[in-house]
Amino acid sequence: MSQPVSPPSIPAFVLVRPQMGENIGAAARAMWNFGLDHMRVVAPRDGWPNPSAVAMASGAGRLLDEARLCSDLPDALGDCDFVLATTARSRDMTKPVFSPEAAMTEAARRIADGQRVAVLFGPERAGLENEDVARANAIVSVPVNPAFPSLNLAQCVLLMGYEWRRATAEVPAVTTEMAGTDWASGEEVEHLAAHYEERLEEAGFFFPAHKVGSMKLNLRNMWSRMPMTRADVQMLHGMMRQMVRWKERGD
Amino acid sequence: MSQPVSPPSIPAFVLVRPQMGENIGAAARAMWNFGLDHMRVVAPRDGWPNPSAVAMASGAGRLLDEARLCSDLPDALGDCDFVLATTARSRDMTKPVFSPEAAMTEAARRIADGQRVAVLFGPERAGLENEDVARANAIVSVPVNPAFPSLNLAQCVLLMGYEWRRATAEVPAVTTEMAGTDWASGEEVEHLAAHYEERLEEAGFFFPAHKVGSMKLNLRNMWSRMPMTRADVQMLHGMMRQMVRWKERGD
Repeated sequence: MSQPVSPPSIPAFVLVRPQMGENIGAAARAMWNFGLDHMRVVAPRDGWPNPSAVAMASGAGRLLDEARLCSDLPDALGDCDFVLATTARSRDMTKPVFSPEAAMTEAARRIADGQRVAVLFGPERAGLENEDVARANAIVSVPVNPAFPSLNLAQCVLLMGYEWRRATAEVPAVTTEMAGTDWASGEEVEHLAAHYEERLEEAGFFFPAHKVGSMKLNLRNMWSRMPMTRADVQMLHGMMRQMVRWKERGD
Repeated sequence: MSQPVSPPSIPAFVLVRPQMGENIGAAARAMWNFGLDHMRVVAPRDGWPNPSAVAMASGAGRLLDEARLCSDLPDALGDCDFVLATTARSRDMTKPVFSPEAAMTEAARRIADGQRVAVLFGPERAGLENEDVARANAIVSVPVNPAFPSLNLAQCVLLMGYEWRRATAEVPAVTTEMAGTDWASGEEVEHLAAHYEERLEEAGFFFPAHKVGSMKLNLRNMWSRMPMTRADVQMLHGMMRQMVRWKERGD
């Protein structure tokens, strides 16, 4: 039972008495989807290592190789300062109950303070026993539909991993994909607006006379509202030029 | 293609050219886990209805019965005001890119305004085509581990459903499970503190004399910090009474 010298920068996800190897493998994948690779496995039903788990884990198989096999929960939690138990149902226990978001925010805070944090996940069929939950400092409850609360093991792991990443990674709320985007400059947009205004004027678009001002203003507003690339601007120029050519051909 | 009379209060989740029936069923379960039951299915590879989907959906089978089968994406999106496309990889498209949280907050806001919102999920192997994404108003990108970004269809549906619920349900960050809990009153805690102080005084615990004040203060602070039930208080009284009896027996 080797101990890392310094506390890890991520929580351990502890699978307690997991049953199906496929679910262990899927849990490993879900962890690694969010950058977590510290797994502990307590008394897996079908022994260890588990070939079905390895087959399912595919790209996340390393987590299984490096997982710590524990005979019981005290063995798994001996070095942990703060333990969270994921549960689907109420336990009538007097413990704090965290949302997944609050739980992973708390976990991140404690880990930054040098503590070791574990998150417990129960066996597929019945979830954690009350004796397991009694060893935890707090409960995590996922806000599922009360009429249909059945999350499977890997889904529960996925949501906790997702919240861990949200709590620790810089996740911008909204960005605009910029890759390869060459935005039109203000001058280019101005030139486009003038081009359209000139040709539409010739075409008799601005009518009646007393509405010319507001019509031009609306058109300018439209151009300035649109996030246009240089390619958009070139295309719009080309469209107008083609209309003029078509008109001049006089078909 | 019947239309509901008023806009629904939830987004439609649109599975675009899904392949495995099992994944369609798992997606239905993931939706219903978070109270979403408006599914549309565009050109499923194996036809419709799909027995494997029904078998996997179990408790969420109703979603498949009620799902709208669409021949192509324009058919599925004809009545939608705002369309979000979930993608795993960057598309070099000039569109807003939302985090799942920001996307579902925006969806909730628009739905509250009477708009119809759809969320697109691509086929398992390759995800949405660029032509599919071009029909969306915005992109949703899950902040996965760049080294291992492989979310499956049902997992992506699960995370979006989870964020929908977070955006719309009152999810308290931290609560304490109260069910069946009979908290000790302030008077009961005070009585307990006095009991311990008295007996510990007799037992010679408060020593040396110049530390008595701070020792008593620390003890009071400890009692007031502990969230104790009436049963806890009774047990603590009993423990102290037993220590006194044991002393008085003089074994």
